[in-house]
Amino acid sequence: MPPEIPHDQPSIESPLSSQRLDELADVVASSIQDDQRTRHLSTDYLPSRREIIGVLERLEWLLFPGFNGPRSIGEASLREHSRRLLAEVAGPLFHQIAGALRYVESTEHIDFDQHCPDCDERGKEVVDAFLGSLPELRNTLSLDVQAAYDGDPAARHTDETIFCYPGIRALWMHRVAHSLFMQKVPLVPRIIAEHAHELTGIDIHPGAEIGNSFFIDHGTGVVIGETTVIGDNCKVYQGVTLGAKSFEHDERGKIKRGTKRHPTLGNHVTVYAGATILGGDTVIGDHCVVAGGVFLMRSVEAGHTVRGPKAAVRLNTNPDPSDID
Amino acid sequence: MPPEIPHDQPSIESPLSSQRLDELADVVASSIQDDQRTRHLSTDYLPSRREIIGVLERLEWLLFPGFNGPRSIGEASLREHSRRLLAEVAGPLFHQIAGALRYVESTEHIDFDQHCPDCDERGKEVVDAFLGSLPELRNTLSLDVQAAYDGDPAARHTDETIFCYPGIRALWMHRVAHSLFMQKVPLVPRIIAEHAHELTGIDIHPGAEIGNSFFIDHGTGVVIGETTVIGDNCKVYQGVTLGAKSFEHDERGKIKRGTKRHPTLGNHVTVYAGATILGGDTVIGDHCVVAGGVFLMRSVEAGHTVRGPKAAVRLNTNPDPSDID
Amino acid sequence: MPPEIPHDQPSIESPLSSQRLDELADVVASSIQDDQRTRHLSTDYLPSRREIIGVLERLEWLLFPGFNGPRSIGEASLREHSRRLLAEVAGPLFHQIAGALRYVESTEHIDFDQHCPDCDERGKEVVDAFLGSLPELRNTLSLDVQAAYDGDPAARHTDETIFCYPGIRALWMHRVAHSLFMQKVPLVPRIIAEHAHELTGIDIHPGAEIGNSFFIDHGTGVVIGETTVIGDNCKVYQGVTLGAKSFEHDERGKIKRGTKRHPTLGNHVTVYAGATILGGDTVIGDHCVVAGGVFLMRSVEAGHTVRGPKAAVRLNTNPDPSDID
Repeated sequence: MPPEIPHDQPSIESPLSSQRLDELADVVASSIQDDQRTRHLSTDYLPSRREIIGVLERLEWLLFPGFNGPRSIGEASLREHSRRLLAEVAGPLFHQIAGALRYVESTEHIDFDQHCPDCDERGKEVVDAFLGSLPELRNTLSLDVQAAYDGDPAARHTDETIFCYPGIRALWMHRVAHSLFMQKVPLVPRIIAEHAHELTGIDIHPGAEIGNSFFIDHGTGVVIGETTVIGDNCKVYQGVTLGAKSFEHDERGKIKRGTKRHPTLGNHVTVYAGATILGGDTVIGDHCVVAGGVFLMRSVEAGHTVRGPKAAVRLNTNPDPSDID
Repeated sequence: MPPEIPHDQPSIESPLSSQRLDELADVVASSIQDDQRTRHLSTDYLPSRREIIGVLERLEWLLFPGFNGPRSIGEASLREHSRRLLAEVAGPLFHQIAGALRYVESTEHIDFDQHCPDCDERGKEVVDAFLGSLPELRNTLSLDVQAAYDGDPAARHTDETIFCYPGIRALWMHRVAHSLFMQKVPLVPRIIAEHAHELTGIDIHPGAEIGNSFFIDHGTGVVIGETTVIGDNCKVYQGVTLGAKSFEHDERGKIKRGTKRHPTLGNHVTVYAGATILGGDTVIGDHCVVAGGVFLMRSVEAGHTVRGPKAAVRLNTNPDPSDID
Repeated sequence: MPPEIPHDQPSIESPLSSQRLDELADVVASSIQDDQRTRHLSTDYLPSRREIIGVLERLEWLLFPGFNGPRSIGEASLREHSRRLLAEVAGPLFHQIAGALRYVESTEHIDFDQHCPDCDERGKEVVDAFLGSLPELRNTLSLDVQAAYDGDPAARHTDETIFCYPGIRALWMHRVAHSLFMQKVPLVPRIIAEHAHELTGIDIHPGAEIGNSFFIDHGTGVVIGETTVIGDNCKVYQGVTLGAKSFEHDERGKIKRGTKRHPTLGNHVTVYAGATILGGDTVIGDHCVVAGGVFLMRSVEAGHTVRGPKAAVRLNTNPDPSDID
């Protein structure tokens, strides 16, 4: 695999002597040899971030045809367009999923055999089921698009939300990642989620269950944890955390994994900017509104507005305006 | 248009049979056919995110020559450099703007005709006016660069702010987007704003009016809404929201669009990290300082410092240090 | 240097006449000529953001071999892989560092001579020392990887933290940038830091001193200032600011640069989401825990938990649920 970024001036030669490079190569190679935690040797099958991003680009062209990617698709060429992209997605997605399954096998079995026909069989099943669910996924995303338009007075048209809204971008990638997560695909869903996080500042764990017609406005700093459950018609703004309280530890002092640690939101819940809701037992009922900046670690019954403490701001006259900035 | 990311291993074949791909193509194509909200067919003219980003890259080379892009520009080649880039920007920018105008026509008129000579005429006028305003834009950006240096003790030189400051990056893109927004160009300004948001975590709606010598430090999580007005010599830090109160609805229960919903800052106003200022009637007077984390929904007269409630932190001894992490 | 993003439709011609382009080129070129603050002419040596990112990509392949980049590296080819990448990094990194040194010379000396053999000599020393420290850097990063796994119940394996965690990505780039910062390399460390910020939303100034086994979870909105000092085994969450109080000014009204302005954390300190700790004299002792959202401008002795004011939330029944969203 060649680097993504070519050197602008590839002719620049190393200022170090060939002998010095040999010395450095020796110590760097043994440091790689010595620390198993930070390297993988001879593991062709490992998932590739770059390949997964390539699959996502093509998926976007299937989910929102005509918005990004080729523009000239007409009714006549639509089926051809779809078939070509489906084939282009199926191969690499299969390769990534089967590779991730091989990877898990390799971490769990000492006598791991890269051959692993089961990984291929399972990978094929997952790809088949996932691509078969695309029409349903498109329906769900269509509701999200409408929710984004309905929820933002600055939007002029639903098209604008598909072209420009980070919330839509984060959400379609999440729904893809969640679908693979539910099929127990390892690593790949997390890589997708982190790619969405990089692009949007919205960090949704692939495990989070999110209902229909969800809208995230602005979105930077939103964190939605692994065991969060969100109902239909909910809305969250930038900087909202749906997170865990401090973690429980087992008898060996290790943190427990795999319990419900993140909150549950009912239907029609709105959480304004910067609010933090924590805890696996915290349930926010239907039609609740959580005001901006509220810090909430308890459940709230349906139909309530939650505000922080009454906090009048304090004003002081600045003695000398020229002193301020 | 070919995908941006080539497959690393393009030879990977689909694990699905040709027959299964045919079946999938049928259902995916009809799902695309059925939902008008999430696709555009035969709409060559739609703006292209990728093409707009290409224009922005070249614009950066005109606005800050020698910082990014070609380095060897000397006094002798400067005019040649400028002319070449102007031509390279004018064509695609015209194409994007005229396309966006066609797009709006298509959403408003049933008997829309792609030919639309008016769109081309208007597109040409906008490009001409915009490129003609570049010297003025450069003057404005020069003041922003100085403000960034003056505002940050960690900066060593104004050059550092152009090379490295997300605030400068977000601001030059905003000033470009705002200029096109003021000329009533649809969609393109929002796509530019969202590109800046993706790169910097700073989300400024193209409609926001921002005075001279503005500085955003760090910037991640900053949200500046569509109808915000900011005077000269203002400064905001990471996580600041200049936003709307909850929205007004019309008699049909739809949110109202197009009213003043976001605050107004005077001159020499500083807003520290994480502060939230909401509401279209909220006016912060000249030389005001808003402290970090303050939540403000009322106006403040000139020359005041606004702090949150006095809030002494509570300290508890941790019973056993080994229990903490 | 060609643009990064090729025009999708390079044949689009400028709608402006050749004469109008000439006029525009004249005024744009003189605006560039006139404002020294926003341009560099004839400065081949200036650092290049793009080239630095290319170096970082190759460095990642040396620091975490097999995770990104080539997969087929086996024990036999490891030394060869290392040597090739070391050579590919050494040349351009040297070019960037020597260029940054030339740049500083040019800002400080009127009779600056681009030839500057001292810059090359010093550049070579820095590259040699930096590449020689890679094994040590790998050891440090291995501890960070373990800390990320130990600190997050959602992680399945240390590998997941290298594949997907923005905290690891931000931290390896920070440790590279800090190493160059300590060798007094100008500009390049800040460009690296800002690249990490762009990718992760985590903004760490290259000057910050960070101990072993540091973990940043989620990370969006984290700001760690230039003179921050952090001990071993610390943990911070999204939206945490370790920042400066408002700045001191010198007798000419200019802000002071170069003093200790940011806090110090001891060992085993945890700072939860959205907390803000400010001030160069603020010292947080070992085994302290700072709760989410706390605003702290004073020191805390070892072994304490810091919480904000007791703030019961206020609940109001929503009169009519249909009125809410």
